[in-house]
Amino acid sequence: MASAVQADNGVNVEALLAAKEALTNAPEAAQFKWRAACEWKDGTHSHSTVESFYGLGQDQHRKTTFAFDADHPEVFASLDQGATPVEYVLVGLASCLTAGIAAVAQNRNIQLKSVKATIEGDMDLAGILGIDSDVRNGFSGITVKYAIDADAKREDIEALVAQSQKRSAVYDIVTNPTNVTVVVN
Amino acid sequence: MASAVQADNGVNVEALLAAKEALTNAPEAAQFKWRAACEWKDGTHSHSTVESFYGLGQDQHRKTTFAFDADHPEVFASLDQGATPVEYVLVGLASCLTAGIAAVAQNRNIQLKSVKATIEGDMDLAGILGIDSDVRNGFSGITVKYAIDADAKREDIEALVAQSQKRSAVYDIVTNPTNVTVVVN
Repeated sequence: MASAVQADNGVNVEALLAAKEALTNAPEAAQFKWRAACEWKDGTHSHSTVESFYGLGQDQHRKTTFAFDADHPEVFASLDQGATPVEYVLVGLASCLTAGIAAVAQNRNIQLKSVKATIEGDMDLAGILGIDSDVRNGFSGITVKYAIDADAKREDIEALVAQSQKRSAVYDIVTNPTNVTVVVN
Repeated sequence: MASAVQADNGVNVEALLAAKEALTNAPEAAQFKWRAACEWKDGTHSHSTVESFYGLGQDQHRKTTFAFDADHPEVFASLDQGATPVEYVLVGLASCLTAGIAAVAQNRNIQLKSVKATIEGDMDLAGILGIDSDVRNGFSGITVKYAIDADAKREDIEALVAQSQKRSAVYDIVTNPTNVTVVVN
């Protein structure tokens, strides 16, 4: 029987289910604040860092500070010293859906062999360049294509991907409006 | 007179204005596709790369491939081998607004000395953990705080930030809904 096989995708589902139980009983611990700091370098080049976040009732500090350079590419007369900001959004969306696929597969006892995504966001630059006020600045649409090798039927693999979308933070952020407040100190 | 001083923020505004002119006359060249590839490693850890994009009527290739690891932190029983996907979105938003501030300042002949942003996204984990279906998976809100040192009055600095929001691709993506299609090949 398939149920005799224990899938191991490296996701600690027991810990996640325990966290769900614990946070159900302590809703204030479930209030998280995710953070980044960004410093302008020159031109369109900036350097961002990610280290601390708030959760489980206190500031949490990592052992590592993650650092990211962002810039525009040379075709925009920039120096291409990092990925463009919109590409960071694509990385966030693809990695969120991919982590979700691994977690859902673990929970459903499906062994993953490989998961690869390509993601593409369409953008008409007539928006950000101010050529046409009817064109939005952001993506007109995003397509994510998955190639997944797993010990499962195609319909079960498709169900993994669907459940990951349903529980993805970044998918929600991109597909639904989020209020952003920008202030100058 | 202030107009006698030439600000240099490292942004080639002449090239951007020339691009605007050129793309106004060749709208098909303004159709861009931004891309990333994401490969699952283990658990919630994935590795993404950013290199090519499509624009100006053809595939464009960079000299460098930018690489990014994403993971969940240790408090989620993961190995913290990279920033979390939602932190990538914060990096994208902060870096997009910051590049915009530099470009608008250049266009307005305002010399920037330093631009620093801190960005924070609030998230109630009751959403992604499936504890409360009324709570969204993504951020309940995002706050960006700028500290800007520039040769300009406070109201002019605030106007820079406002104009950057108005022209930011990532600000648009986060504050407005974007259609995302996910397919399994």
